[in-house]
Amino acid sequence: MTNIDNTLALSRAGIDTYRQPIVFMREDCHVCRAEGFAALTRVEVSLGDRSVIATLNVVTNGGWLPEDTAALSEEAWAVLRPEPGDRATFTHPEPPDSVSAIRAKVYGEALEQDRFEAIIRDVLDHRLSDLDLAAFITACAGDRLSIAETVALTHAMQAAGETLDWGDAEIYDKHCVGGLPGNRTTPIVVPIIAAAGLMIPKTSSRAITSPAGTADTMEVMAPVSLDIPTLRRVVEAEGGCIAWGGKIALSPADDVLIRIERPLDFDSDGQLVASVLSKKAAVGATRVLIDVPVGPTAKVRSAKAAQELERRLRTVGEAIGLTLTIHQSDGTAPVGRGVGPSLEAQDVLAVLRRDEYAPADLRERALDLAGALLDLAPRTRGRGRTAAAQLLDSGAAEAKFMAICEAQGGFREPREARYHAVVTAPAAGRLTMIDNRRIARTAKLAGAPRQKLAGLRLLVQVGDRIDVGRPLFEIHAETLGELEYARSYAEAQADICMIEDGG
Amino acid sequence: MTNIDNTLALSRAGIDTYRQPIVFMREDCHVCRAEGFAALTRVEVSLGDRSVIATLNVVTNGGWLPEDTAALSEEAWAVLRPEPGDRATFTHPEPPDSVSAIRAKVYGEALEQDRFEAIIRDVLDHRLSDLDLAAFITACAGDRLSIAETVALTHAMQAAGETLDWGDAEIYDKHCVGGLPGNRTTPIVVPIIAAAGLMIPKTSSRAITSPAGTADTMEVMAPVSLDIPTLRRVVEAEGGCIAWGGKIALSPADDVLIRIERPLDFDSDGQLVASVLSKKAAVGATRVLIDVPVGPTAKVRSAKAAQELERRLRTVGEAIGLTLTIHQSDGTAPVGRGVGPSLEAQDVLAVLRRDEYAPADLRERALDLAGALLDLAPRTRGRGRTAAAQLLDSGAAEAKFMAICEAQGGFREPREARYHAVVTAPAAGRLTMIDNRRIARTAKLAGAPRQKLAGLRLLVQVGDRIDVGRPLFEIHAETLGELEYARSYAEAQADICMIEDGG
Repeated sequence: MTNIDNTLALSRAGIDTYRQPIVFMREDCHVCRAEGFAALTRVEVSLGDRSVIATLNVVTNGGWLPEDTAALSEEAWAVLRPEPGDRATFTHPEPPDSVSAIRAKVYGEALEQDRFEAIIRDVLDHRLSDLDLAAFITACAGDRLSIAETVALTHAMQAAGETLDWGDAEIYDKHCVGGLPGNRTTPIVVPIIAAAGLMIPKTSSRAITSPAGTADTMEVMAPVSLDIPTLRRVVEAEGGCIAWGGKIALSPADDVLIRIERPLDFDSDGQLVASVLSKKAAVGATRVLIDVPVGPTAKVRSAKAAQELERRLRTVGEAIGLTLTIHQSDGTAPVGRGVGPSLEAQDVLAVLRRDEYAPADLRERALDLAGALLDLAPRTRGRGRTAAAQLLDSGAAEAKFMAICEAQGGFREPREARYHAVVTAPAAGRLTMIDNRRIARTAKLAGAPRQKLAGLRLLVQVGDRIDVGRPLFEIHAETLGELEYARSYAEAQADICMIEDGG
Repeated sequence: MTNIDNTLALSRAGIDTYRQPIVFMREDCHVCRAEGFAALTRVEVSLGDRSVIATLNVVTNGGWLPEDTAALSEEAWAVLRPEPGDRATFTHPEPPDSVSAIRAKVYGEALEQDRFEAIIRDVLDHRLSDLDLAAFITACAGDRLSIAETVALTHAMQAAGETLDWGDAEIYDKHCVGGLPGNRTTPIVVPIIAAAGLMIPKTSSRAITSPAGTADTMEVMAPVSLDIPTLRRVVEAEGGCIAWGGKIALSPADDVLIRIERPLDFDSDGQLVASVLSKKAAVGATRVLIDVPVGPTAKVRSAKAAQELERRLRTVGEAIGLTLTIHQSDGTAPVGRGVGPSLEAQDVLAVLRRDEYAPADLRERALDLAGALLDLAPRTRGRGRTAAAQLLDSGAAEAKFMAICEAQGGFREPREARYHAVVTAPAAGRLTMIDNRRIARTAKLAGAPRQKLAGLRLLVQVGDRIDVGRPLFEIHAETLGELEYARSYAEAQADICMIEDGG
């Protein structure tokens, strides 16, 4: 389009904008002046056959950025992979096709499969700005996605990534809609199902806003960054695995959208269902259990909300060929005693090892879920719960778990954090509620999940009679600063553990 | 909440993120680790009694950012105004009240006055992230704002800023919904109205995406950054002014919202009406003319869209006590010859001075608008157009314009750019359309509005018979690079001037 120079040398800004490509350019540089670029302009940066659309941040004092140079955020750098001395070309991007699809949705039109595909493609190509993504998520929020649109979005998200093919085998899977600290049933359910001779290639996520994701907890005990061939080998050898989903590109658009969905925090059954089921379809699952904890401080807060979600999960699941079973569970309190990767891993091992002090609630939940899955299997139909208990109590599940850990790269025993602090009851009475959200926040302030040994261990349960000064929970941290910071936060939260008179 | 140190020294990043407060912190700094801050976390930065909520960009290689230091974007720096050696406190912000109002709107609830006020207050306090703002704008797009909500939003936007009080005097004003390059009627209409003895305290905007705003054009001829006392003095002395609205805080939230509205570019009559009428109400206007150019490449593209907009303008105008008259005009082609601040100023002066070669279309439009306004005045009701022509032809308007310029700080004659390039007709035929958007883009590539002398001058009009090689327009630039860049772009756009056979 032009014969004047619109190239600049590239430098690495060393700035992490979390998956958002940003380019830093001097306002006085010849490209900004010729192209009329200003702050927040969308700029297409091209290097050889690679290109990325980045948002421009204008460097006003020039000071830290050399002349004739543009600096790239980590995300943009990772896409372009420049060599020393490379010069990139800077142009106005063509507006991406999917912008018109997003606009149509914003104006209330229903979208067809192909338009969702265009949106997901542009999401993965970084062609949409964060504002575009926020508009798309907003336009789909609440009940604005019809069932048909949810099916189309699910298909589009699955089709944009890898799909594992297991031939004719029935593939089992489970997913928990989340919101409960310590609810770490997966590392117990997977070995039970695998010990029953069924296939369960489980992928789990790392924590985004919680103190631990299942992948973080599992990683305390064994490697979880498995590539697809390794995952396949582990599952073919042992019947199951517990791998980090982020390592393999199953429904990769989901990870990009989540970055915008989390801060906006709109309830959207459509997006939740598409996110969950696109990953299940991608992993090749055919029989799926969805665990939906319900409680005032859980993600799903009412029975009515749970029914709505359940209805949509079922309809979309059928439409994409999944046999679904949905299990509503109690979401009023944390599960197990540990909150944080290593502390949760200790709970998991206690249950698998049938320790005397193993948390009974975690064991019961894991057996409920494993039982519900085994009820989907011909050989155990109708007696899933019994079969699950037998596989756990016989030690078959523990042996299978150790075998899976070895196949994934070797088992490691969880360690204990360097520092502990005890938070005690400020009043006497009956413990009526534990606030999941503030328990999670305390564990994060202590360093979880970044510090695998950090978090907290609950020493009481809902229903307990409490005396003044009774230890409520123990904060674990690797540094004194984090220990003190988490402790002072927790002690400032009078009703993090709600203790009520009488009764 | 805590007794551990969560302060850092402040440095100026010298990065312009256009009204978006950003804070840069090292991922290894003690505050990020203690608070659990990660990329894109919203962070409240407090210094004495000032505070700002900024979005965190994490510096990963630490290199350019000293230890124990956080760097602020220009916007955040301007809010906190740190002194050397100041240390700010970094905490998790309370979620702003208005987030629940935005969520309600996203889910389809209608909002009352008080909730719009909460949103506008948080917009001005920078308490909402760009994602929150995008969600709000998306939730109000299309026809999602009812008339009642549009009235409430208009009130909330006006109430958040200054309102000028002119006692019992009738105050006249005009606004053009925009989209036409060169449509610079304001500097002609204002002196005509003032010469008729009426009061018209006109505030105009600078260009955001166009090659020139009225304030940019006026600034070529006189100072426009008037504070409120100066504006009042000018209007009391001369009856009118043409000032830059950005200097005085009339409906200030509008400028923040526009930053997000422009890139999203959703049609939203509700937001458009609230934006226009809140500013009119704030300036104290009582009788307002709205010019709505309609054309395929104008902002309002169809008669139906114009009627919808007109209906909403009228209803909301009445509700907030404005007498409105709406004038639909031809939006199919640029107006006048010049596009760009100085070139448009030359057109304006040619009309005021009744030069032989003054652009007739600009003169006629200005007289139509001035006439429509004078029809609202008792002394000229029913003969506004005649009165307007008389005031222009007698030289009264020119004299009044010069007096206004002097009162604003002194008249300056527009100058001519250093370099010109001529773009000629590639084919013969009749000129049937000129593409407003690509004409505007060409002028911007030539340097407008940053370079006040840059832009282009049209040498043909729609309807002309064109021979091959006939000059279509002249590009003006201050640098050869910009001249060449604009020329090569324009010549690559075959139908920027649509020339059709026969006829």
